[in-house]
Parts: sequence; structure tokens; C-alpha cells
Amino acid sequence: MARRARASRQRNTQGGGAIASPFIRRKLKHFDILDEEDLVKIEAQVDWIIQEVGIAFRDDPEALALWKKEGARVEDDLVRADASWIRALCAKAPSEFTQVARNPERSVTIGGTNQVFAPVYGSPFVRDLERGRRYGDMASFEELVKLTYMHPNLHHGGFVTCEPTDVPVSKRHFDMLMAHITLSDKPHLGAITEMSRAQDSMDMMDIVFGRDFVDDNCVIMANVNTNSPLLVDRVVTESVRVYSARGQGVITVPFILTGAMGPVSTAAAVAQAMAEAMMVCAYVQLIRPGAPFVMGNFLSSMSLKTGAPTFGMPEPVVSNYAIGQLARRIGLPLRCGGSLTASKIEDAQAAYESADSMHSTMLAGANFVLHSAGWLEGGLVTGYEKLVMDADRLGSYQKVLSQGLDTSDESFARDAYGEVEAGGHFLGSAHTMRHYQNAFYEAQLSDSENVENWEERGSLDMRARACARWKQMLAEYKQPDIDVAKLEELQTYVAKRKEELPDAWY
Amino acid sequence: MARRARASRQRNTQGGGAIASPFIRRKLKHFDILDEEDLVKIEAQVDWIIQEVGIAFRDDPEALALWKKEGARVEDDLVRADASWIRALCAKAPSEFTQVARNPERSVTIGGTNQVFAPVYGSPFVRDLERGRRYGDMASFEELVKLTYMHPNLHHGGFVTCEPTDVPVSKRHFDMLMAHITLSDKPHLGAITEMSRAQDSMDMMDIVFGRDFVDDNCVIMANVNTNSPLLVDRVVTESVRVYSARGQGVITVPFILTGAMGPVSTAAAVAQAMAEAMMVCAYVQLIRPGAPFVMGNFLSSMSLKTGAPTFGMPEPVVSNYAIGQLARRIGLPLRCGGSLTASKIEDAQAAYESADSMHSTMLAGANFVLHSAGWLEGGLVTGYEKLVMDADRLGSYQKVLSQGLDTSDESFARDAYGEVEAGGHFLGSAHTMRHYQNAFYEAQLSDSENVENWEERGSLDMRARACARWKQMLAEYKQPDIDVAKLEELQTYVAKRKEELPDAWY
Repeated sequence: MARRARASRQRNTQGGGAIASPFIRRKLKHFDILDEEDLVKIEAQVDWIIQEVGIAFRDDPEALALWKKEGARVEDDLVRADASWIRALCAKAPSEFTQVARNPERSVTIGGTNQVFAPVYGSPFVRDLERGRRYGDMASFEELVKLTYMHPNLHHGGFVTCEPTDVPVSKRHFDMLMAHITLSDKPHLGAITEMSRAQDSMDMMDIVFGRDFVDDNCVIMANVNTNSPLLVDRVVTESVRVYSARGQGVITVPFILTGAMGPVSTAAAVAQAMAEAMMVCAYVQLIRPGAPFVMGNFLSSMSLKTGAPTFGMPEPVVSNYAIGQLARRIGLPLRCGGSLTASKIEDAQAAYESADSMHSTMLAGANFVLHSAGWLEGGLVTGYEKLVMDADRLGSYQKVLSQGLDTSDESFARDAYGEVEAGGHFLGSAHTMRHYQNAFYEAQLSDSENVENWEERGSLDMRARACARWKQMLAEYKQPDIDVAKLEELQTYVAKRKEELPDAWY
Repeated sequence: MARRARASRQRNTQGGGAIASPFIRRKLKHFDILDEEDLVKIEAQVDWIIQEVGIAFRDDPEALALWKKEGARVEDDLVRADASWIRALCAKAPSEFTQVARNPERSVTIGGTNQVFAPVYGSPFVRDLERGRRYGDMASFEELVKLTYMHPNLHHGGFVTCEPTDVPVSKRHFDMLMAHITLSDKPHLGAITEMSRAQDSMDMMDIVFGRDFVDDNCVIMANVNTNSPLLVDRVVTESVRVYSARGQGVITVPFILTGAMGPVSTAAAVAQAMAEAMMVCAYVQLIRPGAPFVMGNFLSSMSLKTGAPTFGMPEPVVSNYAIGQLARRIGLPLRCGGSLTASKIEDAQAAYESADSMHSTMLAGANFVLHSAGWLEGGLVTGYEKLVMDADRLGSYQKVLSQGLDTSDESFARDAYGEVEAGGHFLGSAHTMRHYQNAFYEAQLSDSENVENWEERGSLDMRARACARWKQMLAEYKQPDIDVAKLEELQTYVAKRKEELPDAWY
């Protein structure tokens, strides 16, 4: 293995400079858009769904048996329960917890006033300016893991940075996990598509961290979707039985295209999503009280012209603000939002939509943000340029959140007014000299040159600069160190499991 | 003259559809990022600047004489005053007022919970995809006035949509005013560069509205900059004596590149800007108590690489939120922010920066937003594509602000849950049928097609679509009706004044 890269130096050269940190400790106040009356109304709707409408737990008799045994009303596969009991179960989940990374300097705390940014998840395609749009493969996956590792404004590796479609589905998760474990030392998620794959992920974590350590610490999380409306399938409950049973984190995300998987109203869709996620959280707490849980929310609007989902639009912006406030009220860590867009390329549409989506995500207080960088084409594509462009902007959000407005005595610069006259300038004042180096976020991919210099350098747009950037980053990549014995154990485990399993493409 | 275009139809076909209205009546709560302690600290700094540091009123003995007579401490041209007196004077300014438009349906209310969007102001250059970057001229100016008139998401015409550099400076304001008056019927600003030009603007308003009406109503506003730090020049005080004396609106905007025209600290720069604007507001109230005043704020960060101003960065984002709260507290209407960027073209950089800048401007509650559309290259360039791209996004902000989250009983769609089973869909439910047509903001320039359709249609990026859009709008433009007698009177006035004045290029 290459020698361990110096994390601190990397942080200073790769992006946001001084403001980079393993996650964001928010200082900025929250934005509460709902008053008490609105909150009560939405929570009453949540409780009504839980008590009267019910959530189906499908194709998993074991889950239904547990619900029945614990006192829920189960009718076929529909589970209804006393809402106050479900709320009491949800209260057992920690309001914040730490996911320990292989490199403990990179461990992240999720929940409370902490915010964590992770890249796009699950795209079957990738796109970059040199190679165009193509199916994701293992080579791209590894490049994207490397870029995520190197970028100071991404705190978490996510997991499926793209689908490596050149590897059989039955074996893909091994290669993805090995890439995250060996090419990066940031925290990451695990496999969920089948119970055995979830178990493989846990087994590999036991090798990396040691079984006892895993029993006492969250070292991995699973990200699962409910099957909205009102349906939880066995992918979710089995993931819960593997991950939550060992005290690992589970993020549960209702994906609701309003008007399709939920009513065509933001308030109703937010309430439904919350009811679905709360029922899964309660199920988690039945499996292992106190297991970490992240309430997810992913609400999309729709174009009447095309019927396709749209992103960065006013309805999801408002829903981000609303769910942020509701999550703080119930005391559950929240995943929502991201740098989302329907655009096919890294044009102004992509940036406008991503920025409005992410600005609201940031202010909403989302504790874990999957898709915070790299998302294109409604999530079908991971963009290389988009990844570094979005991540550059994340540094700005990080500063807004972690610093807010400094109102220390020093910030008021009274001494400077003794030096500068009306109509003068502060460029040389002692206060400016003391602070100018850290006063401003320096975006790496924003060009502030005058037009003549910009033209002389080739009139490059942000896409072209981003392309140069990720290529430079990959050229400079140095693999983080890993314990050789553990690496061999992982390799042996993966080789053995791959031998046991057939190649399968589903 | 062409027959008057049907405003209501235009609003429905040109952009944001159902949500367009003459201005935004905000329903969304405000975002207060400062606590009482912070507010008191900043206000103490403002008062300290007013009382101890002082603001210079330069090259205008008449202004100094008035300050002296009213009881300020005047030393050379430096004015210091009791802060509580200045605050009492500021309290005479209305917290909200209406600027009446030539078409009363387009009158805007500025202040309180109302928000008004106006295009970019003052760019010497223009840029579009077909004709490239070039000096602004009268032909471009008129096209930009037409586009602003037609776009449903722009509530106000602004004034210098670009500098018509082909017209002598001494006569330029006549042509600009005639363009706003005859090619549009939205409200607009007036000339400020010389006292006589301000007076010409007022004289033309007297013709349009009638002198008596102007005496009782705000029909025009002047936008003036202080000369930060701490300096008010005669452009400001003379504008005040022309516009405020007649009860018209004055917007006063300290432009502070932090570290240059103010300390390199956001808190200090915000306080300084507030002190400068308050002193001008107080001066306005000395001239005419109760005259409408808008407190401006324009704070920019700086690139350490180039020394150039940067936009859409975390420091101005935070300053927008802070000044919004401070403006509400002092009860003055606020101008701040805009769709700002340092990018030379309409690329992703332009859109990211503009969106973060404008998202914070919107949430901050800015009552009058100059530069809300069309700004490029740090304000040196008005972009045709940028104008319609930004304006398209303004429709999204308008919906966020004016609707917030609907929590009516109908919004909770309980009947739909009687129709839809777990795992089903809401596409055909009665609730969806009742609401889908108005549920979503339909952005005109965002493409949500799948990649195959998008490629078939030529793989156009947002710039290309925006280019087609403004060309289509200009092709469809219909001039609003105007009273023929008034038009002739205006033409006679302008012809006479132009004869009196020499051609001058300064």
C-alpha cells in the first residue's frame, strides 16, 4: 500500500481551505417556517395515518409477527398502531450519534446541530466532459470514491457513487465495499439489496473494526427506501434486522413524487413521509432499542409538460424547511434534499436547481445529506464535473452554517475607524491585515478574473474548469494507509464469498 | 400607438403562470438569524458610528447648513449626531408605501411583508448568444425594457437596464425615461447623475401623472449610492432635494466591498452600511417628513487570488439574512441582494452564485430587489439570456414566498387515502384531479425531458433555450397603450430640453 496521505495537507489544498472539518457543527440558527398551529395539524395527520390508515409491511411474516406480538393492530399485512406508542418508540432512537470512520479523524456526528455531506447515490450512468455519458463501471466507481475521499467538503463517502454495471449484481457489493475501505478512510454506507449482502457488509465491518468494537459503535449505515405510499417491503425490514440488530445506523427514506406516491400537496406528502419513516423507526426500536435511525425525506415535484420529476422547485424547497422543523421537534436526525436537478448536463439549469435545492437543504438543518454533490439527470447520472462543482459550493454552505455572523468585539473593527477617513479605504488598516486571509471563502471553481484575463485563458466555462480539476485531483491521489493484516483478511473473505456465489445480474 | 396589450393574458403565457402578480405579498415567515444580544451589539455599533465616527456630507454646503441648523454636530464636512435623534427621524419614514405605476394594475407596494423584483441596473455592456459582448446602446436598452415589461416575474422596470452608450450622457436620461414610459407600463426609477437630470425625471412624471397626483403619490424612485466608507456626496443630497422634496422614493445603497470600503468583517460592514443609510434617511426626513425611503445594502466579498469582488459567497449570504432582520427591526423597507455573479457568461458558475445570492435575498425579506435578473460579470454586463433565466427562477421564489406551506384541511387530502391502497398511486385520485393543475410551479426554461428526447431536440443547454425565449418574447411584444396627448406633451418636453442642452459625454 502507498503511505498514508497527509489528511491535513490534503484538506488545505483541495478545496475550501481553512473551513474544512470532518463534519459541520452548526452555529447558524434554524429557520422555523411553521407555527405551532401548523405543526399540530401536520402531526395530527401523521398520527391519523399511523392509527387509522396504516402502513403495510409486505412479504415479511417475521416483521408482522413482531408487530403483532408487541401490540400493533395487524390486518393482512397492514399495520396500525397507537400513535403515542409509535412516538414513544421513536423517542428511544438517539437524537444524535457518531458514525466512526476507519480513520477516526474522519468520524461524523449525525443529528442535533451537526450536518454531514455525502455524494450522489445509485446512478446507473456516469458522465464527464471527456468520455461523455456511459454506463457506470467499477473503474468509474473507484474514481468517484477517490474524488470523494479527497474533497474536503464531502464528509462521508456515501456508497453507490455510481452503479458498477460491469460487475455481476450478486458480487458488486464486495467490490464497492473494498473500494470504500481501501481507497478512502471516510465513513460510508453498506449494501441493502439483499439480506445476505447486508450481512456481508456487516462481516466486512467486523474485520475492519473488530467485532467487539462494532457491537459498541456505529461504523456503517444502511440507506433504504419505503415503497411509498404506505408500504414497507422486506428490503427495509431485513436491512433493519441485519444493521439495526447490531446497533448500526439505518436511514429510511420515503421517495414521494407528489401526486403519484403521495397526494399532490406538500403538507400531505410531508406528513405521509413522516408517518412511513416513523413506523420504520419504531420497528427498529423494537428490534434494538436505542439503535441509531435517520428519518429520511425525499419529495419531488412534477412537470405537467412531461410528467417527469422536477428538482430545485418551490414545492421541495418549502418541504425541506418544513421537514427540518418537524424533525427537530420529534428529535430524530434527518436526511433530506441534496444538489438535485433534472438537467442532463452541468449547465445553468443544473446549477440553479442544485443551488436552490441545496440552499434549502442546508438551512433546513438536514443532518445527513446524500446527493449533496454529483447528481445529474434526476439521479440517473453521476457527473464528474458536477461532483466537484457541487462540492465547491458545499464549502460556502459549510461556512454559512459553521460561522453564522461573528459579533465578537474584534469583528466590529473599531480600531480601523481610527485609521480610515470618510471616503478612504480599509485595505491597509491593521484590522484588515489581521483578518483578510481568513475573511472570505475562496471558491476554487468560481472565476472572478476580469473578462480580458478570462478570455486570454481560453474563455473556459465552469464545466471546463471542473474537468481540469477532477483530473488533477485523480493525478494527485494518494491511497490512505491500511493495516496489512486486515486488508488480507478482507481479501480472503471476499474471495471466499465470491467463490460461493454464482454470477447473477439481478 | 399599438393597442394596449392584454396584461392578464401576457402574464399567463410569458412565464410563471398562475402565481404571477404585480408584487409579492409574503406569507412565508422570516428567518431571524440574530438573537437579541447580537442585534443590540450591531445597533450599538451603528449608533457609535453616527455619534462618534460621523458621516461626511461632501461638496454640498446646503446639506451641511441644514444639518447644522437642525442640531447636528458639524465639523468641516463631517456630521455627527445623537443616534436617538437620527432613529427618531428614521421612524418618520413609512415602513411601507406604494409606488404607483402608469398602469395602476402594476403598482407595487414596497416594505412590510411585500417583495418586489426589478432587473439589473447600470451595466455598460450587454451580452447575448447571437451578438456576443458589446457596449450597451439605446437599441439594447429598449429591448431590455420590453423584456422586463413582458416578464411576469419582474414587478418593476428598474431604470438603467444597460447604459445606452450611443447617446450623449447629457441627453441619455430623456431617451431612457421615454423608453420606460412608452414601451412599458410598469413602475421605474428616475435619473440621478445630476440634479438637473433628476429634475427632468420629475417634470416628465408630472406630465405622465399630473402634478397634483405626483404631490400626493410616489410615482418614481431614485437609487443612489453612498460613497463608502462614511461619505455622502452631492449626487445623493441633490437627488434627495429633488425626489424626496416632492414625496418621491429614495433608495440609498452603501456599496461595500468588505476590506476596502468597510472593515474586512461582515458585522462591521453591515453596521457601517446601516449607519450610512440611516443618516441619509434622516436627511430625507429633514427635507420632507414622511417621504418614502428604502434602506439599501450591497455587500460584496473579495477574491484573494484576484482582488476582485465575488458574489454568491457565504459572507454576503449571511449579510443578507442579517440586514433583513435589522431592517425589520428599524421598520425601514430594504433593498439588498440580487441574482449576482462574477461569471462572464451564463454558465453553472453564474447560476450557482446567482441562486445562492437570490435565495438568501428572497428569504431575507428584501422589499425591493434591484439586479434580481440579468446581472453578469460583476455588474459590468447585462445578459439577455441571463435576464430570462434569472426571471424564470424568480417565479419559484415568488411561489415559496407567497404560498409558504398550505395547511388547510383540503391540503391534507384525507379523502385520497380512502381511494389509494398501500403501494398504489394517487395519480387518479379525486384530490389529485382537483389540484394537479396548480400544484407545481412550471419553470419555463428548465428541461425535465428524458435524455433521449432532450438529445433528439438538439441537446440544448439552458443558455440556448433562453436565447430562443427572449427572441420569441421580443417577436411577440406589443406596446402598451398610452394617452396620445400625454405622449405628445412628453415628446415636446424632451425635444425642447434636448435643444437646450449641449451633447456631452460625461
